[in-house]
Amino acid sequence: MLEDKNQKKTSLASLGEFKLIEHLTKHFTISQESTIKGIGDDAAVLDFKEKKVVVSTDLLVEGVHFDLSYMPLKHLGYKAVVANVSDICAMNAQPTQITVSLAVSNRFPLEALEELMAGITLAASIYGVDVIGGDTTSSQKGLIISITALGEASLDEITYRNGAQVGDLLVVSGDLGAAYMGLQVLEREKQVFQVNPNNQPILDDYTYLIERQLKPEARKDVKELLEKLEIKPTAMIDISDGLSSELLHICKQSHVGCNLYEEKIPIDPQLINVCEEFSIDSTTIALNGGEDYELLFTIKMDDYDKIKHNPNFTVIGHMVAENEGTHLITRANTKIALKARGWNALEE
Amino acid sequence: MLEDKNQKKTSLASLGEFKLIEHLTKHFTISQESTIKGIGDDAAVLDFKEKKVVVSTDLLVEGVHFDLSYMPLKHLGYKAVVANVSDICAMNAQPTQITVSLAVSNRFPLEALEELMAGITLAASIYGVDVIGGDTTSSQKGLIISITALGEASLDEITYRNGAQVGDLLVVSGDLGAAYMGLQVLEREKQVFQVNPNNQPILDDYTYLIERQLKPEARKDVKELLEKLEIKPTAMIDISDGLSSELLHICKQSHVGCNLYEEKIPIDPQLINVCEEFSIDSTTIALNGGEDYELLFTIKMDDYDKIKHNPNFTVIGHMVAENEGTHLITRANTKIALKARGWNALEE
Repeated sequence: MLEDKNQKKTSLASLGEFKLIEHLTKHFTISQESTIKGIGDDAAVLDFKEKKVVVSTDLLVEGVHFDLSYMPLKHLGYKAVVANVSDICAMNAQPTQITVSLAVSNRFPLEALEELMAGITLAASIYGVDVIGGDTTSSQKGLIISITALGEASLDEITYRNGAQVGDLLVVSGDLGAAYMGLQVLEREKQVFQVNPNNQPILDDYTYLIERQLKPEARKDVKELLEKLEIKPTAMIDISDGLSSELLHICKQSHVGCNLYEEKIPIDPQLINVCEEFSIDSTTIALNGGEDYELLFTIKMDDYDKIKHNPNFTVIGHMVAENEGTHLITRANTKIALKARGWNALEE
Repeated sequence: MLEDKNQKKTSLASLGEFKLIEHLTKHFTISQESTIKGIGDDAAVLDFKEKKVVVSTDLLVEGVHFDLSYMPLKHLGYKAVVANVSDICAMNAQPTQITVSLAVSNRFPLEALEELMAGITLAASIYGVDVIGGDTTSSQKGLIISITALGEASLDEITYRNGAQVGDLLVVSGDLGAAYMGLQVLEREKQVFQVNPNNQPILDDYTYLIERQLKPEARKDVKELLEKLEIKPTAMIDISDGLSSELLHICKQSHVGCNLYEEKIPIDPQLINVCEEFSIDSTTIALNGGEDYELLFTIKMDDYDKIKHNPNFTVIGHMVAENEGTHLITRANTKIALKARGWNALEE
C-alpha cells in the first residue's frame, strides 16, 4: 500500500498498440510440448495429439472483481491466471496454455501494465502454462482482464459436474472461507487508511487470510494426488463462488441431493479468530465466501479408506437422492436447507 | 435507429448471474464433431484428433471499438463473432468453436443482451462454430465483449505471416475501404440526427458501405477456393487494421519488402463516389481503413495463371528483397514508402 511517487511513468499512447504488445509479451516463453506457435500471428497453433482439449474463460472488471487500492497489480495478474487455471483443474485436466486480453484506460502508465504482466508471467511459469495470445486495447474506465485457459486430459480423466451418484462422498481440498475474510480485513484497513492516511495497517494476525485473498493458488496438485491414491473423482468443481453455490451446481447437474456436515467443513484457526473479532459466524463464511479456488469433488464410498487420513482432503458430506433435497447438518444436528448465497456480479 | 419506447425491459439484477447465463445460452446448439462438451461445466471439452488447434482472442469495448448509437446490438454480436472467425481464417484454418464473455453495466436490460446474443447465435450458425463457453458479469461502464475463437487445420495447411518469399505475388480477397467509409457515413448521419432528431437519414446511396461496416463477413470461403485452385498460400493475414498495416506485418515477419500497385487495389464503385462526396482520396481509405475482414496473402509466382481471372481475388503487388523496402507504386508511377496508419486503440 506504499507507493513511490517518483516512479517513472511512460504513457501507453506514446508507444502505440503494436510496440506495447511487443514490449509486454517479450518475456513469455514456450514450455508446453503442445504449443506449436504462440504470440505473433493471427492465432496460436496447438497440437494436442490424442488428448482432449479443455477450454475455460473469465472476464475480470475493475471495481466489480477487484479493487486496485489494496490489490497490487502483480498480485492481480497472478490471481487472474490462478482463477482460470483453477477451472481447468476442476475438470481434472492439466492446464497448458492461456490467452490474456487487457483493456486499460489511459490513466495506466506502461509501468503498471508491466507489474500486471509480471504477475501473469510468474503464475504462468509456476503453473507451467504458455501465454499464447491475447489482445491489448483501451477502455473507457478502469482495467478489464479477459483470460482464456486451455488444458489437456484423456477422456477417462475428465471429470464433469454431473457425475455424482447417490451414496458418493463429498470431499474438499484445503480449507475454506479464508480468502473472503482476507478481503474483509483489507476493506476495513482501506477505510481506516482513508480516515487517517498516516495509519499504517498492522496485518500480522491476518497474514494467512490476506495471502489467500491476494495470492490464491489453483489446486493443480489434486489431479496427481488423486491418481496416487488411485481415486477417480465422480464429479468435480472449483470453489470460486462459495461452497454452497458450487455444491448446489453439482447436485443440480448430477440430479442428486446432499447432506453437508457443518462440523466437517475445514476452517483455518486464523479464520475462526478473525470471525470472532468481526462477530461473524465462521460457517457462514466458509459456506458463502468465494475465491478459495479449492476443489470440491465426489468419490465412491469404497474409496473412503484411501482418503480418510490424507491431510490434503476432508470428507464433508455425502450425496443422497434428489428428492431428499440439499441440506446442511449443523453441529446441533438440525437440518437446514442449503442456499446459494455466493457472489452475484449483477446485483446492484 | 428507431426505437420502440414501450419495449418490455427486464433488469439483469432481477435474474441473477446463473439464470441470466442459462437464459442467454439456451439456444446454442452443438454442430462441430470436435465439441464433446459445450457450456455448463468449469470448462468445455474438445477433441481435435490428428488436427492442430488454432486459437485467437479479441476484446471489444464500447466507445472504443463500437458506438451503440448507430451499431444495433444484433449487428454488434454478429460482427464480434466475424472478427474472431476472420483471425482463424487468416491462419488458413477452419473455425470450429468460440467462447463469448460479456461485461454489461446495469443500464442494459435483458432484452438488449438477447439482441446481442441473437447476432452471436446467427453468426455462429452461419459460420458453423459452436459457442462452448463464456462468462457474464457486470461492468462499471458500457458493454465489453471478449471472444476467443478456436479452429482446426492440418499442419501443412496452416499459413503464418512469416512465410512470404521474394518474388511471391501479393493477393487480396474482395474489395477494400468500404467498411471504413460506411463508418464515416454513419457518423455523419449521427451528427445530423443530433442536430435535428426529426431528420430521417437517407442512406440508399451508401447501402454497400454501411453493410460492410455493420455486417461484415469473414472469408471462410477462401481456404476452400484456394484448395480448388490448387494454390497453397505462403503467408496470410486478415485485414482488420488496414491494408498498409497488415502488409507491413507480413513484410516484417517474413523479412521481405514489397511493391504494392495503387491501380490494382480493388475498390467498389460506391466507395469511389462516396470518397468524392467526402473529398477524400479513395486509395488512402483503401490503404488505411480497417474492418474489411478480407484476407491478404502471398502465393508463388508460378500460381499466377491459376488465380489471374478469379473474381474473388486480385493480385495487387509482389514481394521484393527486404533491403529494397516497402513501397506503394502510384498511378503516376512514383514510389512512396508504405506507412502503417491503421487504427490504434491506445491513442488519445
